[in-house]
Amino acid sequence: MFSEKTVLRIPGPTPVPPEVTRAMTHTMIGHRSADFSNLLSSVENKLRPLFGTRGSVAVIAGTGTGGLEAAIANLVHPGDGVLSVTTGNFGDRFADIAKRAGAELHTLAYEWGTAAQPQDIDQFLTAHPHVKVILVTHCETSTGVLNDVEAIAKVVRQHDAYLVVDAVSSLVGAKLLMDEWNVDLVVTGSQKALALPPGLALVGIGDRALARIKERPARTLYFDLVRYDKDLNDRTTPWTPPVSLVYGLEQSLAMIEAEGLENVQARHLLLRDMTRAAMRALGLPLLVVDDKYASPTVTTVSTPDFDADAFRKILKNDLHVSVAGGQKKLSGKIFRVGHMGYVDAADMLQCIAAIEIALYKMGRPVTLGAGIKAAEEVLVRA
Amino acid sequence: MFSEKTVLRIPGPTPVPPEVTRAMTHTMIGHRSADFSNLLSSVENKLRPLFGTRGSVAVIAGTGTGGLEAAIANLVHPGDGVLSVTTGNFGDRFADIAKRAGAELHTLAYEWGTAAQPQDIDQFLTAHPHVKVILVTHCETSTGVLNDVEAIAKVVRQHDAYLVVDAVSSLVGAKLLMDEWNVDLVVTGSQKALALPPGLALVGIGDRALARIKERPARTLYFDLVRYDKDLNDRTTPWTPPVSLVYGLEQSLAMIEAEGLENVQARHLLLRDMTRAAMRALGLPLLVVDDKYASPTVTTVSTPDFDADAFRKILKNDLHVSVAGGQKKLSGKIFRVGHMGYVDAADMLQCIAAIEIALYKMGRPVTLGAGIKAAEEVLVRA
Repeated sequence: MFSEKTVLRIPGPTPVPPEVTRAMTHTMIGHRSADFSNLLSSVENKLRPLFGTRGSVAVIAGTGTGGLEAAIANLVHPGDGVLSVTTGNFGDRFADIAKRAGAELHTLAYEWGTAAQPQDIDQFLTAHPHVKVILVTHCETSTGVLNDVEAIAKVVRQHDAYLVVDAVSSLVGAKLLMDEWNVDLVVTGSQKALALPPGLALVGIGDRALARIKERPARTLYFDLVRYDKDLNDRTTPWTPPVSLVYGLEQSLAMIEAEGLENVQARHLLLRDMTRAAMRALGLPLLVVDDKYASPTVTTVSTPDFDADAFRKILKNDLHVSVAGGQKKLSGKIFRVGHMGYVDAADMLQCIAAIEIALYKMGRPVTLGAGIKAAEEVLVRA
Repeated sequence: MFSEKTVLRIPGPTPVPPEVTRAMTHTMIGHRSADFSNLLSSVENKLRPLFGTRGSVAVIAGTGTGGLEAAIANLVHPGDGVLSVTTGNFGDRFADIAKRAGAELHTLAYEWGTAAQPQDIDQFLTAHPHVKVILVTHCETSTGVLNDVEAIAKVVRQHDAYLVVDAVSSLVGAKLLMDEWNVDLVVTGSQKALALPPGLALVGIGDRALARIKERPARTLYFDLVRYDKDLNDRTTPWTPPVSLVYGLEQSLAMIEAEGLENVQARHLLLRDMTRAAMRALGLPLLVVDDKYASPTVTTVSTPDFDADAFRKILKNDLHVSVAGGQKKLSGKIFRVGHMGYVDAADMLQCIAAIEIALYKMGRPVTLGAGIKAAEEVLVRA
């Protein structure tokens, strides 16, 4: 029974709104048709404000990791000095891509659950003036940290270097102003706060990055951002685009536009605050202690005296609620609650209530309703 | 009126069956769930026979060109000697990817509309024994030529080299037996004979290719085929897969299995023969003269004394039938009729009848019904 019933509270893929699912069933069309050109233009016009850029946003068939690879393959050539600022698993992945590409890789690593500090980057770049590409993860999905991209970008620009931001699990949910903050490349994916199925990587291309890439042609054809940028001016894509996902994207962007980006971001902050208040009331420690660095899209919860994965199993099997587990060294030690995309306050109340029941079933000391009460208090104050 | 009405007879994207569209609306699930592992295993078990391999078939978020890039980025390192056998636009693109990757690139180019000759490759490899990677396009979508991969593979193996085949617009529609013929890597895309929306690249990985790639780690993380192969054994994917397209793929593969691969390929040959007979009866020259090299998935028709693009416009505007135009040097000189995937004999009769009407509307000398008669004669004899 209820074979498709899933309350998907993992930090991606996220639930897809029925409006988007329906948009994706549009009859297949040729990608060199006027219809597709119109679709792409419509999407592009709505994407630029989300990235906060007047530049192009490349729409690429691929997932977030593909977008990160595109950024590196265009901006980094073998032997280039690259600084990877890593605060978790996805920061490490970003660094891996640069290493594979032959970069001279330097790493500034932070304890999982803490955020990168701009002054460390400043110090590093002062000591290593030949390092001109800096990789930063905006929301580190493995820990729930939101790094301060605005402050980091300020430092990076002072050193005349290029900043590449992994905004896969942050964009739309968290504020990011590419042009105003001086970020050179921004990567996101479709299956997070955009509430689409996975399969699209989106790369915002700043003017300065584009000029740099034009100077040194990319070693990749598929991910060549100069081609994507050029073809966007002709309202087309260099290769066959994932047409059905682009139809879905247009619908998702229309929904974001209708709600208003500021309201969307306020909703994400509210859901974060509800979740954090609930976990505190239930006596569960938050991995990201400082509210300032707590991501609006995912909340990570430590389970110091029980197995997080056994808890997740009860939550899924008995209540059909899926939350994510810890990755790598945090495996079994935390669970991660996604609250991005197609999710509202009532959804979080459902999720928090389910967490209370699962704690009770595990035999944990729990005051039933305590988490919900705290979350509701946040909600009514909002 | 009829705003979504499109008879899509271009060589990809191709029409998507309603069964596949429905499968893609499945509720979103987590990609690290047991449900997704089961889905991936089901897909993998059905994919291997289509490729004719006991090896892995990597399921990658990307399109056909992404699959070609994956093949090159894994098998070709800077400075490696590579022979590109090119019979048209997609052969040229394959070569471009190798060149970007830093290969020492050699080219055997054939006149557009003609096929590659195995003895030329034999001669070349005898004279250039250090060239160990050969790139061949199975169906050259820009010209409608089907190259003789079986014969080419025999030659390549005699020289102890690696054969990489672009089967984007051939696989499923045309016979290709990876292991039996000794093909090392085979790339296809979802939006052709598999009748899915674009967004999936599939790469069949032969044992010999895998061993070679393991010796020399790829410069790419996103496309690292060793990772895809390893993770398939654990019934997972290295990065977030395009979940909805994988649901669609499972349905498409079930439909192919139900029809039987041999019957699917016989259907494609029949549609090709109907189309060729009709064009001949209408006095339109076929670009691929020799039936032996005529692709079962796309037929290319020359228009020596009228503008192919003006003709296509009438076909689309007045009859809602989309056929493709010529690419690059064949622009305006040919049109291309796709007959792969979700298409049957009645669809081709509709398309041929529409072509007759469009010729009539252009003021061309045409015996109404002559093309249809010829196609029907092929059909009733089958």
